[in-house]
Amino acid sequence: MNSFGQIFRLTSFGESHGKAIGGIIDGCPAGLEIDLDFIQNELNRRKPGQSKITTQRDESDQVEFLSGIFEGKTQGTPIAFQIRNKDQHSSDYNDLKDVFRPSHADYTYIQKYGTRDHRGGGRSSARETIARVVAGAVAKLLLKRVGVSIQAYVSRVGEIQLGKPYTELDLSQTESNIVRCPDVETANRMIARIEEAGRNHDTVGGVVTGVIQGVPAGWGEPVFNKLHADMGFAMLGINAVKGFEYGSGFDGTRLSGSEHNDVFIKTETGVRTKTNHSGGIQGGISNGEDIYFNVAFKPIATLLKEQNTVDRAENEVTINPKGRHDPCVLPRAVPIVESMAAIVLADHYLLNRINQL
Amino acid sequence: MNSFGQIFRLTSFGESHGKAIGGIIDGCPAGLEIDLDFIQNELNRRKPGQSKITTQRDESDQVEFLSGIFEGKTQGTPIAFQIRNKDQHSSDYNDLKDVFRPSHADYTYIQKYGTRDHRGGGRSSARETIARVVAGAVAKLLLKRVGVSIQAYVSRVGEIQLGKPYTELDLSQTESNIVRCPDVETANRMIARIEEAGRNHDTVGGVVTGVIQGVPAGWGEPVFNKLHADMGFAMLGINAVKGFEYGSGFDGTRLSGSEHNDVFIKTETGVRTKTNHSGGIQGGISNGEDIYFNVAFKPIATLLKEQNTVDRAENEVTINPKGRHDPCVLPRAVPIVESMAAIVLADHYLLNRINQL
Amino acid sequence: MNSFGQIFRLTSFGESHGKAIGGIIDGCPAGLEIDLDFIQNELNRRKPGQSKITTQRDESDQVEFLSGIFEGKTQGTPIAFQIRNKDQHSSDYNDLKDVFRPSHADYTYIQKYGTRDHRGGGRSSARETIARVVAGAVAKLLLKRVGVSIQAYVSRVGEIQLGKPYTELDLSQTESNIVRCPDVETANRMIARIEEAGRNHDTVGGVVTGVIQGVPAGWGEPVFNKLHADMGFAMLGINAVKGFEYGSGFDGTRLSGSEHNDVFIKTETGVRTKTNHSGGIQGGISNGEDIYFNVAFKPIATLLKEQNTVDRAENEVTINPKGRHDPCVLPRAVPIVESMAAIVLADHYLLNRINQL
Amino acid sequence: MNSFGQIFRLTSFGESHGKAIGGIIDGCPAGLEIDLDFIQNELNRRKPGQSKITTQRDESDQVEFLSGIFEGKTQGTPIAFQIRNKDQHSSDYNDLKDVFRPSHADYTYIQKYGTRDHRGGGRSSARETIARVVAGAVAKLLLKRVGVSIQAYVSRVGEIQLGKPYTELDLSQTESNIVRCPDVETANRMIARIEEAGRNHDTVGGVVTGVIQGVPAGWGEPVFNKLHADMGFAMLGINAVKGFEYGSGFDGTRLSGSEHNDVFIKTETGVRTKTNHSGGIQGGISNGEDIYFNVAFKPIATLLKEQNTVDRAENEVTINPKGRHDPCVLPRAVPIVESMAAIVLADHYLLNRINQL
Repeated sequence: MNSFGQIFRLTSFGESHGKAIGGIIDGCPAGLEIDLDFIQNELNRRKPGQSKITTQRDESDQVEFLSGIFEGKTQGTPIAFQIRNKDQHSSDYNDLKDVFRPSHADYTYIQKYGTRDHRGGGRSSARETIARVVAGAVAKLLLKRVGVSIQAYVSRVGEIQLGKPYTELDLSQTESNIVRCPDVETANRMIARIEEAGRNHDTVGGVVTGVIQGVPAGWGEPVFNKLHADMGFAMLGINAVKGFEYGSGFDGTRLSGSEHNDVFIKTETGVRTKTNHSGGIQGGISNGEDIYFNVAFKPIATLLKEQNTVDRAENEVTINPKGRHDPCVLPRAVPIVESMAAIVLADHYLLNRINQL
Repeated sequence: MNSFGQIFRLTSFGESHGKAIGGIIDGCPAGLEIDLDFIQNELNRRKPGQSKITTQRDESDQVEFLSGIFEGKTQGTPIAFQIRNKDQHSSDYNDLKDVFRPSHADYTYIQKYGTRDHRGGGRSSARETIARVVAGAVAKLLLKRVGVSIQAYVSRVGEIQLGKPYTELDLSQTESNIVRCPDVETANRMIARIEEAGRNHDTVGGVVTGVIQGVPAGWGEPVFNKLHADMGFAMLGINAVKGFEYGSGFDGTRLSGSEHNDVFIKTETGVRTKTNHSGGIQGGISNGEDIYFNVAFKPIATLLKEQNTVDRAENEVTINPKGRHDPCVLPRAVPIVESMAAIVLADHYLLNRINQL
Repeated sequence: MNSFGQIFRLTSFGESHGKAIGGIIDGCPAGLEIDLDFIQNELNRRKPGQSKITTQRDESDQVEFLSGIFEGKTQGTPIAFQIRNKDQHSSDYNDLKDVFRPSHADYTYIQKYGTRDHRGGGRSSARETIARVVAGAVAKLLLKRVGVSIQAYVSRVGEIQLGKPYTELDLSQTESNIVRCPDVETANRMIARIEEAGRNHDTVGGVVTGVIQGVPAGWGEPVFNKLHADMGFAMLGINAVKGFEYGSGFDGTRLSGSEHNDVFIKTETGVRTKTNHSGGIQGGISNGEDIYFNVAFKPIATLLKEQNTVDRAENEVTINPKGRHDPCVLPRAVPIVESMAAIVLADHYLLNRINQL
Repeated sequence: MNSFGQIFRLTSFGESHGKAIGGIIDGCPAGLEIDLDFIQNELNRRKPGQSKITTQRDESDQVEFLSGIFEGKTQGTPIAFQIRNKDQHSSDYNDLKDVFRPSHADYTYIQKYGTRDHRGGGRSSARETIARVVAGAVAKLLLKRVGVSIQAYVSRVGEIQLGKPYTELDLSQTESNIVRCPDVETANRMIARIEEAGRNHDTVGGVVTGVIQGVPAGWGEPVFNKLHADMGFAMLGINAVKGFEYGSGFDGTRLSGSEHNDVFIKTETGVRTKTNHSGGIQGGISNGEDIYFNVAFKPIATLLKEQNTVDRAENEVTINPKGRHDPCVLPRAVPIVESMAAIVLADHYLLNRINQL
């Protein structure tokens, strides 16, 4: 289904080559100042054609708000927005109308719905994430008021791993390079790796790390809507994501309990933990420490090279797509990861208002 | 919040040392035969005291159904059930009333709710998963009718890794040993590792792998309720889980697209894929191949040794818990993982009934 | 489905002759003192056998709370409760197993579910409202803290109409008589009317009026969850209800706009309205004036006299039910109406916490 | 909140003088042919300026679909649409910016949200029902495939009552006159009554009756989402509605049970009821008979005459609105009532797919 969130709730619409992508944000409190430049800038961080390592498609992706904002502020009413689709070379896809591209959603959409808009992936296109970035930008504005910051960066491309934890990085450097890795030396190696993939008409995957600071203790709704469960749900709903881990994650399972436990200590600013294997969440509720997590992105399925497959009539066919596609989704995934994290947190911020008398 | 699922929907209740744990299953179709022995047996797979490597607490955990079943069949009405709590040494916890145990939910519950039932972890206790196992057992009965099987097993304990993929294992052997690893040799090493942890008054984490077979193409509800996103949400909501990956997962992000793509082929039984890095899900919808995933469990936070912490008055204190606790959650987590997977699938089975005219 | 409310949310379970009726209340804030005597007393107002004009079945209906309350206070965790069914003369219903009683749910349940628990109406029995009264009592305790009172009374039985608006009545007299009409003279005529129906082995319908005082301006969630829309939804979900109107209701549609409009005036206690045709709700949001509404209850379908009907095999048959049944549902409906109103208001009280920054 | 329906789900957006009114329909099955002319025609039935007894504002209200439809058919993906607002004399409302118009939502919106878009009523304007009519038209197309028809008509204007039940009327005549009453003689009297109100700068209320035919037995989801409870919820959410009754309604409460019960009979087309006081719904589930109901609309609050009130600073002021407003909402309410009924039924049609194995 196409709604996300309990209170701060995005409903998303749009196909890649339809008239528009957009959505409705319900449940945003009234009185929030909407900084349109900030929102457009967030969209620009996601858009294609922004650098030599992303697709050269030119999608300007201008957001138009249709409701919910009056005299620059939210009204407590639903905030609708659209981004018209342009630059659609829909006919590029004619040859693919009845073909099941490997590791795409062509086959499963046909099986589920009996029909599909084949142009540019239709609803299954990552172009849909535009709606998430707009809603995420609004959520960021809401969270900023309560001191919460959300930052993501590329921590691995293929085998090129950023070897330091976020605590040893200067996250303000993330936007200083086109791959969005805050360590310049690693960033350059990642860029080279992506360019290599592009030259090979191939693609490469990797990992985005998210870091959230300023969340007070108390956000999260056990037993099912634990903060990290909603966060993982949000991340796994992003196109191409294959895994999610938070805090110590998969590696932490190799530690013994005595190594893994985060001992509580008394500090000048109150109760804190000495270590943070918990990733800022205990029992599904934030404990005031930093929240951090990793999101795994598979290599993009669209290859600009020959591949065998079958078509809807079950004939064996060979495809060799043309066009302008990303060799690596990671750099453009950074604002999407941040946006979904922001929506989750905005929702939990509001949900937490009801827990005490 | 305490409900899970859109249509096949579990609402769970109960604290560890309250009167009962239980739940209500809404949305189960009418006419399903309820095999009470099967359900009780699933609960027995989860219960404490079942082997030398689990806690020796004796909790018999008898389920009583209160509604929704008549003459052995579901009625389309809500199915309520309870498991009364017994053998509660609540006074064991008196010393911990105002103490924040490291990496437990004590601190965050107090921060969120201003109060908590400290006895045995209260609502944050894994004892709550009893409700999930009962609902999961009902879901399994529903899914069995449509040919879906769900099997989980322990694939890693600490550093002891089961080195084979599920396709090279005989999953019928999972229940042949107390650690629930289908490879006997590895199982023995895992058991030794858990016993070692127990001797050290320490704990150890690991990984549970889930395998689902028989799901037809078409289950999953993009764009947010992708089948793997709901599956990850379900797993991350289980106590002690720190990560989730499906199909090729985190490792798959190291492959190039040409290595990772699953080529469609024509077979006697219709369209299939040659490889299955997709883990049976493409674009968030099942494609008819096996679904498989990994779930990371941290080492249990309760250690039977001295630890430093602070209490509610922010005094520094030392705790040294007594009692009967698991040194490793993995063996008992297997039926819980299966149960949550079953609930997710039952829900998507029903949701998929509405997609076509 | 069997859940009611967005935040303060009741999930109800139970069949008339099953093991228990009960429910789970999710979303009640932590820290609320639970007055068990008050809750049991609310249940007693609903129970059969409380007077000569209600059924003489003796159902003691003792509530047992299973979770969510610790040391007398709510914990922010789900509050589960059950009321065990007793005094079940299930065999009384054997003759009715395959018969469709006129204006009951026998036929429609079979058509919908293909099966039904025929004993005492099964899930369609008004005995299910026990769950609502318990949840409503908890909601009343929550609302009392913010100064909201909820009172209902019987304003018509058959043709016997209480001729005064609530503003001219002493609502503290409602419980002074067995029909729950605050005007003693009218009450006596109503009682006589119900006794007459009983003597005729017939039944009689009527109207319950609800009055809510102390709701501040601002509760209600347009455009769909208008306060009166949720209130009407709640009332129409009660067994035997055929209509709902609030404020000026159906009669108000006969007025002209200039007669009907509630003029705003300035008073010592702030902005008020001169009249209250709006029934305390404007644009779906409370305006601080009293909320009042009427609920129409049909005459109960169970008659202790011969009636023609057909059975499941489409044979024409004659039924002549025995047993102990109410000749009029109205007196016992009063606490049910209050309870559903309380649940709606508790929900909106909490929802309204999110509307402003 | 701004979403309606469980499966077939409309999320609505837009303020009266904002950029657009619109919505997203989620959960419509794939493969439904979309007749755009039919949908536009439904909108035209709702639009202002269509006759001498409605407002003379000229709002062309052209719907544009943005997603979810490909090659003329639904895709199972969200169907977004917008209707751009035109002809906005926003400055007409400058004088009313800080004034609380009697029986409007001005005061309550300010109390709830701390802000409001005052132009033309903002979000509280009945212009929002455009979104409902579009979604209702899609729902009608879906229901038509399964033989369900939905018809509404004006049955009372002020005191002018249509004296016959729907069974004695030719509903195909509803659209033959501008007041949408199928009895021509009564229609003429209603038109005269509305013209009289207009001449007096006053307004008049009334009743719309809805009739639904062709619903098979089995739709409706007890215990809370009874078919008539969802129907009443839908109707009470329409602007200016003060009451809802179905079947025998308020009047039926005057009957004795033996008069009111609908006896089952055997017919050539299966089990039917002899009478239909139940209004086609028993126990909250359709029984195959016609569903019929009444909806009470208050007289419109906007009067083109002088009225006293107060403003935001609590000054006593006099207002005397100018502009083009309806003297009676009833004729234009007919398609809105039908639309909400259609959305409710489409939702229950889909929900009912999950009740049996």
